Amino acid sequence: MDLPPGTDAHLESSAPPLADFAALAVRAAQLLRTPQALVNLSPAEATCVVEHMRLVHFAKGVTLLREGDRTRVDFMLLLLDGDVSVETSAGGASDAVSIAVVGPGSVIGEMALLDGAPRSTSCIALSPGRAAGLSSKELERLIESHPQVAAKLLVGLASRIADRLRGLGEQLQMYAKLSLDLQAEVARLRASARR
Amino acid sequence: MDLPPGTDAHLESSAPPLADFAALAVRAAQLLRTPQALVNLSPAEATCVVEHMRLVHFAKGVTLLREGDRTRVDFMLLLLDGDVSVETSAGGASDAVSIAVVGPGSVIGEMALLDGAPRSTSCIALSPGRAAGLSSKELERLIESHPQVAAKLLVGLASRIADRLRGLGEQLQMYAKLSLDLQAEVARLRASARR
Repeated sequence: MDLPPGTDAHLESSAPPLADFAALAVRAAQLLRTPQALVNLSPAEATCVVEHMRLVHFAKGVTLLREGDRTRVDFMLLLLDGDVSVETSAGGASDAVSIAVVGPGSVIGEMALLDGAPRSTSCIALSPGRAAGLSSKELERLIESHPQVAAKLLVGLASRIADRLRGLGEQLQMYAKLSLDLQAEVARLRASARR
Repeated sequence: MDLPPGTDAHLESSAPPLADFAALAVRAAQLLRTPQALVNLSPAEATCVVEHMRLVHFAKGVTLLREGDRTRVDFMLLLLDGDVSVETSAGGASDAVSIAVVGPGSVIGEMALLDGAPRSTSCIALSPGRAAGLSSKELERLIESHPQVAAKLLVGLASRIADRLRGLGEQLQMYAKLSLDLQAEVARLRASARR
């Protein structure tokens, strides 16, 4: 499935199964494993997940996920190659701000896939690349057919979301401290202006 | 299992099974369901999870989770009653700051349970209360014995973590905007002081 520049990504059931591309399928299975999680996918289990994924080719500039999108929320992507900018319209600014650049091994879009809420950030391809897509239907099928594999995948996905939450928490602490320092500076400058 | 004031919580395997307390077990099963998630626990499946949980009584002032703790990370708690303050030592401040108060139906500690990382916040009981505890061992047992139920529970837990991530993202945007405004105010005051 090819996504040309200027398009928004979606995951069609006509996209080719990743399993048809042996080398990429092996790479995806390796990237899916989350060694630090409570339970981890074995290589065979990761291969089982990959059998439910589809290959997505994207051009530079493609919007893989769009912040606020409520319709195309039924898939996640495991990046196989290429760089992707994660962007947000911070604090109601009109221009989106890049908050991270992610690459191979990163999973994007799993939050909306799991909870059905609108996409929380935009993800824009900075280069051409490839991703392994998992649709909500395929995830439901995996839970039906291989529930133990699905459970381990879900521990891994939850673990990745938790990791981002920890990172964001640290950023928030930094901003909270910066705001306090700036407030103190404003108070100091105002006091000396009054003298 | 009773936790008196001034103690840190842990979850002993000697704590009484929640299933021994019929009314509380029914309540826990109801609170476990996450209607907005991709797949939701049925009442029977929620009851199956509850059969792996233990009852924890806590006094006011008990530290249910301690920020940075690397040892007692092998359990999560579903609050059944009582109020709990979620606290963080924001930006290296010596005093912890309360960032939220959570009550019945809230799950705390699931992140460290799933990814094994140190606790990201402290959770302090503001009142006496009760919680349903799930240990990592029991979760692993559930994945073994009822993988489909475990998978659905994990979708629900991931969904709750995602929800917190979205909330924190909004807070971060607010702080980012506040910092920009304050920086502009500092620049303005400095310029007028120079005149």
